[in-house]
Parts: sequence; structure tokens; C-alpha cells
Amino acid sequence: MIYITRRETFNAAHRLFKQEWDDAKNLQVFGKCSNPNWHGHNYVLYVTLKGDVDPETGFLINLKDLSKIIKNRVIDKLDHKNMNLEVDFMKGIIPSTENVAIEIWKQLEGDVIAMGAQLHCVKVSETENNFAEYYG
Amino acid sequence: MIYITRRETFNAAHRLFKQEWDDAKNLQVFGKCSNPNWHGHNYVLYVTLKGDVDPETGFLINLKDLSKIIKNRVIDKLDHKNMNLEVDFMKGIIPSTENVAIEIWKQLEGDVIAMGAQLHCVKVSETENNFAEYYG
Amino acid sequence: MIYITRRETFNAAHRLFKQEWDDAKNLQVFGKCSNPNWHGHNYVLYVTLKGDVDPETGFLINLKDLSKIIKNRVIDKLDHKNMNLEVDFMKGIIPSTENVAIEIWKQLEGDVIAMGAQLHCVKVSETENNFAEYYG
Amino acid sequence: MIYITRRETFNAAHRLFKQEWDDAKNLQVFGKCSNPNWHGHNYVLYVTLKGDVDPETGFLINLKDLSKIIKNRVIDKLDHKNMNLEVDFMKGIIPSTENVAIEIWKQLEGDVIAMGAQLHCVKVSETENNFAEYYG
Amino acid sequence: MIYITRRETFNAAHRLFKQEWDDAKNLQVFGKCSNPNWHGHNYVLYVTLKGDVDPETGFLINLKDLSKIIKNRVIDKLDHKNMNLEVDFMKGIIPSTENVAIEIWKQLEGDVIAMGAQLHCVKVSETENNFAEYYG
Amino acid sequence: MIYITRRETFNAAHRLFKQEWDDAKNLQVFGKCSNPNWHGHNYVLYVTLKGDVDPETGFLINLKDLSKIIKNRVIDKLDHKNMNLEVDFMKGIIPSTENVAIEIWKQLEGDVIAMGAQLHCVKVSETENNFAEYYG
Repeated sequence: MIYITRRETFNAAHRLFKQEWDDAKNLQVFGKCSNPNWHGHNYVLYVTLKGDVDPETGFLINLKDLSKIIKNRVIDKLDHKNMNLEVDFMKGIIPSTENVAIEIWKQLEGDVIAMGAQLHCVKVSETENNFAEYYG
Repeated sequence: MIYITRRETFNAAHRLFKQEWDDAKNLQVFGKCSNPNWHGHNYVLYVTLKGDVDPETGFLINLKDLSKIIKNRVIDKLDHKNMNLEVDFMKGIIPSTENVAIEIWKQLEGDVIAMGAQLHCVKVSETENNFAEYYG
Repeated sequence: MIYITRRETFNAAHRLFKQEWDDAKNLQVFGKCSNPNWHGHNYVLYVTLKGDVDPETGFLINLKDLSKIIKNRVIDKLDHKNMNLEVDFMKGIIPSTENVAIEIWKQLEGDVIAMGAQLHCVKVSETENNFAEYYG
Repeated sequence: MIYITRRETFNAAHRLFKQEWDDAKNLQVFGKCSNPNWHGHNYVLYVTLKGDVDPETGFLINLKDLSKIIKNRVIDKLDHKNMNLEVDFMKGIIPSTENVAIEIWKQLEGDVIAMGAQLHCVKVSETENNFAEYYG
Repeated sequence: MIYITRRETFNAAHRLFKQEWDDAKNLQVFGKCSNPNWHGHNYVLYVTLKGDVDPETGFLINLKDLSKIIKNRVIDKLDHKNMNLEVDFMKGIIPSTENVAIEIWKQLEGDVIAMGAQLHCVKVSETENNFAEYYG
Repeated sequence: MIYITRRETFNAAHRLFKQEWDDAKNLQVFGKCSNPNWHGHNYVLYVTLKGDVDPETGFLINLKDLSKIIKNRVIDKLDHKNMNLEVDFMKGIIPSTENVAIEIWKQLEGDVIAMGAQLHCVKVSETENNFAEYYG
């Protein structure tokens, strides 16, 4: 079994807040990450697949194909967007790094299985100091 | 003469757009960077000073002092903020990387001179692929 | 289950040596890392927690709280210090990268459990070429 | 149990192609990575060992020794070489990132066991966007 | 005056050698960089332009346009190619980092002037330890 | 004219302090950088030379030769050493980043001129947030 990872990037705006709470409560829980006028990040996404190497090609899968799937399912929807307002798969979900990783997993899992591989890990880095990893 | 640089970071939302233009024209000129719902970045700021080494201390200036000035004048105003809406020194200015570098220079120059040094360069990195440098 | 990581840094002096051995024997085993006059590193610390996402907040835990714990328990004790002479939790322990990771784990585990999460991994990078990981 | 990693680098030329296929078929499967005139990369190699810390030294193993083994078995054979033509352990093997990681594992495993440790992971990074990991 | 930089990458094979010299002499001068079977690198290219900020847009130039020019003139010709054999603008030129920077400058200068900016610097990084800069 | 840079690293212990001052005064001026028991850093050194490209080789100078000079004159003296106690060329000099850059310049200038090039810049990075540059 081999593990192969593709790195992609996207830049997005977001705000951590819970609709059921007022701004004061959101500010108390989320601090400056709850700024009502938004802030944003250069997100770095690492998608890791596992499976057997195809002896015909030496590939688990062709990373160009994986890159296309990530672009279609994830990057095109998130890049230069507002995570709270514009991203279909983030609707109603607090865009914490943890939740972003989990929701990206859900977007990718079907296509990865259809390629004949397994999704192993989705890692989302929000800043150079913070990242989340989800293994399903 | 010696040059000394301090690196700081901030995360902000912005939108490239010109108030005199409608959204269609803004989109044509600025592309996805003009998304009306904002997007954002992990900005990296490098502030370079030049001057003579103080033989008493071996310092051009104490970088702790420079860091405090950068935090007061720049980071506290930009970090987790919306550049178009909330930053006093960016009011009415298109927040391109170029303009961000120029406006940060203006914020810092007076305090740097008051410290007995010269401001040499403000470098603002918007993504790992794009950065601007301003030398006054 | 989600994994979340916080990165922190500290700069410290150390020397690899065993008190029971003389300098010649220490030099033979540890090479230049045993220099009696010390040397030092910019250490990079990655603390990874695992657990369930709190549906109220979207967080495993608030990384600001984790950062505070790491600062109180680890960074304040190690940063700009001599690991062999000044750090209570390193007393009598050879400050190899392996041991630094293990001892930092011991410092953090109780507080992490008290936060309602599990400590998954402590990774300590000594140079860009060497790092150790401890999983308890 | 502790995990310790050594990072090494090498620069090599390669071409993804299968001898049984003609250039057209190779181009269709491998794209520009199958350029008959070769291309190349700055590979980054991470070798991770696991085992118990030796209480005498605080080391799992001395990373200087691991570095020597990696240099003898791997770097000296790959660095500034053509992977398809000149590397004994890559003969007849498509030099995909996956296969490079697997073959490096085979080169190192015996020596690592002889050192009293276990080989845990070989990670090979081909570009900043692509890497493979092999755990045996 | 403002300076703005775009970073791009390409992967290529090359060999340092002088056609007038035999392999022995080439090896003596260029060492392993003269391996007759080629080797390769992940090159990183930084193109810096200078000029005035357009008050209409806040841009010196639109970096998307610069990126397109760099792709057309440089990246498409070098990426996944053999510098000695396949790159029109490197014909007859020893592909040292210095010469690569100089030849890329020549490829870009005309288009940059046509955009209304000045080419300030071409920086080519061959490895994490070596890079060349050319200012015309 | 071309500029070429070599990157090298060293790990050292140091303490910022002035012998004429007592510990209290040193602490007041230099803060935790004046800890009497030392601390240390992973220093990164960038040495930039300028001159003309030799049409015979495509090199300004052979970077292997520059690397040897830097190792002999600088790295071997600083690596895994105490800057205040053990480095001949730092005797009596406060080891601030500024002074380290200036003293390394003095060590290298003669040999670089003897190679037929000019020393353009010595850049010393003390942490990821602080660096000094000296141009003679």
C-alpha cells in the first residue's frame, strides 16, 4: 500500500459565528475570528490517497486526475469566495478549520473511490501555525 | 550601513474594486479578486530599516521596539479585518498589494525616523506567488 | 474524530552529554553536539490533539486555549533558556530531540485531557533536517 | 516508542515511460512527464525510523549514522543521475514518485534493522505539490 | 516607484558542459553537474517589475497578465524539457543558473516594456542553496 | 553583471551582553536575549557575489568553491559553537545579528576578491522573523 498526496491552495474569506448567537456571544467564543466584516486566509489543502501501485504505470492514480477532481469539487467553489455566503457545501456550517477539512472530505470521497483509490486524509492549513487533519 | 528586517503576519479580507465602476467593469478588470462577497489572504509583511550599528548595543535598533511599532501602527489595524471597510489608512484606496505596501510605509515612516533609523523597504506578500516592495 | 495541530517556536541552548561520562567519551558519542560551551537551535514544536468536533463551535478545542497552555507549560520554560541548566522538566535528562519531545508530552498531557481532548502527537523539529515525533 | 526523521535531498533526471509502449502511448498516459529528452526534479527525501530511546544516549539512533546510510545506499546513487539509465536499484522500474519511495525503502530496510531500529516511513517529495509515502 | 514580483516554477533536465571540451575536461570543471546522462531541478523563477502604480487600478500591472507572458515566453518552453536540447533560447548556451537568468531576462524584456513597465530583476533558484539574480 | 547566492546554515549559542554592564543593565537592554546561561539559533547565511559571467563556463564563480570558502572561513568556526566564547572573529563583539553579518563579511571579502568576484551582500537570518543584511 502506498500513500500519495496532492497539495492545492485557495484564498477565501470567512467568519466564525453561530447564527443562533448574537454578535457579543460570537465575539466571546470566537474572538477576532468572528469579525462581522469578515477576514480571510491563504488556505493550503493536502489530499492524501492510499491504495496499491498499478504495475502498468507505477502510479496509485495519476495526480493530474486527482488535481482535476480537487479543482472541480473544491477549489473552484472556495477560491476567492466567501465561505459563509457562497459555498454550497459549507451552507449552515461554521467554517472552522476542522469543519472545512470534514466538508472537503465529503466532496472528494465519491470521486476518489470511483478512481479506484481510497481517500486517506484531508489536511487543511489555515495559517502557518494552525492546521486540521481528517481521516474519515 | 546595515539593513535589518522584521517579519510580521496578518490575515485580512479584501476586494479589489473601484467605486466609480459597476460590478461588471470591476469584474472585467480585477477578475475573481473583485468578488463582491470578499475573499482574503494570509499577508506576510517584511519591514526593512537601514542605518548605522550602535556600538553600545550592536543593534541598528532593537527589533522588539520595531515589532511593537509595526503591531501598533499596522497589524492591530489590519489583522482579522476587512481592508476595504475597517482600516482607517486604507479608506478610499484600492487594496492591491502595491497600495497596501505604500500605505504601510506611510504608517511606519514617522516612527522609524523617531527611532533614529531610516525606513528602507516595505515588502508585502499576498500569496506565495505574488509580492510587492516599496522603497519610498 | 478530527486532528488539530498548533505550531509554536522557541530558541534554546543545549549540549548533548552524559554526566557519568568524561568529555572525551561524550565527544566520541555525541560529536560536536557535545561542545562543552553549548550550541543552540530554533526549535519548532507541533502539538496535535484529537477528538470530536463540538457541534456548537465547530472546534475540537479553541486553538487560542491550546496555544496558552503550550506557552505556559513549555515555551515560557524553554525559550531563550539553556535546556541542560534551567528547565525544570529537563533536569537530569539528555536534551536529544527525542527526549525533548517526550518531556514536552508529559508537560501537556494533563492540561489537554482537562480540556476534553486527547494529546495525539508532539513533534519537535531541531533543524530543517531532523525531527522527532512522540505519540505517548 | 519514538519516531525520528532525517531529511536529505537529491537532484535527478527521469522520464515516466513503459518500454513496452511506444512514445505516443507513453505520452497519452504520462503526459509531459514522458518527454523523451528527460526532465528532472529536486527530490526531498524523509526517512522515519521508530523504536525505543536508548537511555544511555537519549537517541533512538544517532542521526549521523542514519544520514551516512542514506547517503551510501540512496543519495550517492541518485544525486545528479538519470533515474532510468544509471541507478542500479531503479533498473526496469518506472520512476514514479510512488516507485521511488518503495525502492528507497528496500535499499534502507536492512541497514536500519541492523542498527537496531525499525524503518517506519519513506517519504519522497517530487515537487512542492506532490509527494508519496511508503510504510512497507 | 513600486516593485512587484511574480513567482513561477518549472522542472527541467540539464547538463553543464562545453561542446569544445571532452567529457574528462567537462567533469573536471563542472563535477557531477556535467553527468552525460543529465540531471534536473525544480527551478523557481521570480520576475520583478518596477514602475508607477496606475491610480485607476492600484496595479503596476495586472499580475495575471505578467503570469501569462512568463508562461508563454518561458515556462512553456522550459517545463519538463531538456535545457540543452529542446529550448530554443538556450541553444548553444551553457545552462548555468547565471545563464538561465540572463536568457529568461531577454525573453521577457520586450513584453514587459510593451505592458508599460520595466523589468527590474530575474531571479532563478536552482536548489534551496543556490540562486542567481540578473538586473539587465 | 550577475549576482549569485549561496545559502549555508549553522547552529550556535550566544548571549547578547556588554561586558562593561552588569547583568541587570544587560537584561534591561537586551531582554531575554541576555540570559547568562545562553540560548541559541539555527542561523541561515546567504552570501551574494557579483561580477561578470565567464563565457568559458557560464559561471560567475563555481559555487562549490564559494561553498568551500564559506565553510573554511565561517561555518567551521561557528557551527555548534558558542559565539561569545569560542569564535576568534567574534571576540569582544556583541553577537547581534547585525554584527554577525558584518564580521562574516570581513572573513569572506579577501577570498572572494582572490576568486575574481566581488562580495555584494552577507545576509544572516537569526529566526524566521529577523534577519540582517550587510553590503560592506
